[in-house]
Amino acid sequence: MADDCTKLREAGADIVFTPTEAVLFPVPQQVTVEPPPIAAELCGAFRPGHFRGVATIVLKLINIVQPKVAIFGKKDYQQLHVIRTMVSQLNVPVEIVGGETERALDGLALSSRNGYLQPDERVAAVRLVNNLQQIKRALQAGESWYDALEVRAKADLEANGWRVDYVAIRSQQTLAIPQQGDKALVVLAAAWLGQTRLIDNLEVSVST
Amino acid sequence: MADDCTKLREAGADIVFTPTEAVLFPVPQQVTVEPPPIAAELCGAFRPGHFRGVATIVLKLINIVQPKVAIFGKKDYQQLHVIRTMVSQLNVPVEIVGGETERALDGLALSSRNGYLQPDERVAAVRLVNNLQQIKRALQAGESWYDALEVRAKADLEANGWRVDYVAIRSQQTLAIPQQGDKALVVLAAAWLGQTRLIDNLEVSVST
Repeated sequence: MADDCTKLREAGADIVFTPTEAVLFPVPQQVTVEPPPIAAELCGAFRPGHFRGVATIVLKLINIVQPKVAIFGKKDYQQLHVIRTMVSQLNVPVEIVGGETERALDGLALSSRNGYLQPDERVAAVRLVNNLQQIKRALQAGESWYDALEVRAKADLEANGWRVDYVAIRSQQTLAIPQQGDKALVVLAAAWLGQTRLIDNLEVSVST
Repeated sequence: MADDCTKLREAGADIVFTPTEAVLFPVPQQVTVEPPPIAAELCGAFRPGHFRGVATIVLKLINIVQPKVAIFGKKDYQQLHVIRTMVSQLNVPVEIVGGETERALDGLALSSRNGYLQPDERVAAVRLVNNLQQIKRALQAGESWYDALEVRAKADLEANGWRVDYVAIRSQQTLAIPQQGDKALVVLAAAWLGQTRLIDNLEVSVST
């Protein structure tokens, strides 16, 4: 946390709010936010209850800080979607802004988790975004057999030692399986490289 | 609603917020507030999901209006408790104030539901609060066999044609069954007189 605070100070932050668990949870949390059904898919299918916890703690933090704007990274695309849906459907008076994903020179999405990767794993890790890029190009070229694209990427990762939670082509707007004519898509993946779970995604605009 | 607005104007209200369903629910509500476990007891045992709906709509209204203070009647004692718990545990920036129950001359708690009572039922309706009063006096006199008091009141109501959902002695603070030494109690009841479901409660301070 000291590291984070240093970076935040350098970035121009005046105030950092770092409540202890005792401040946030003076009594066991019995009131929770039930997220929308999409929270049970994608990452939610592998982490039951995860987005209920995320939605609840984010609502608490927003209610305490009462910010005009709150920024959440697009790298956790499903998290951003769940928070946007919660804010909209519970009429929370805050503007949610998605932050673009920062990437290393080879394309790997920056994440504190990357620090867990062994040196050889760090080199191999770029395969995740490379597969997403390949799907993006295929979609832009007019490919619409989503299942085949997903299966091929999954097979490529598994052939190279990854354990894949999912590779999925979804609608940006709903995170559901795209409908006919849906032009704003997102390709998402979550996969394990050794002991480290990596997630990434790419937004794709298709013309048809 | 015109009636309510007239009364509110007479009481000095400057603004009344009366959103249509389309304003509050532009899309099907998929994000909900899961209330604390106590919401499944008392009235909640007879109205599954009721307090989830109450908590969700109240949070939406508070987020839209952003009031400094919100008043909820003590007559819906469990509703007030659920809302207080939600506001506290989700850190909602509003002060919840309990409004005292207004009563008719014979003691019947005022409620829009009283309008559904037939003339003879209206006369008989006072039996509910009379039973609560009797329990209150017994508790103040030192009686601590709660079950017996509840069963006796229930039997009296049923012998007079009521269908009783519950008569319960609970802790004001938690709405749970009182612990040894709990001095701030509340006696709650819900029962049907003909086609009308009436609820009422009395707070009781005991010395031991």
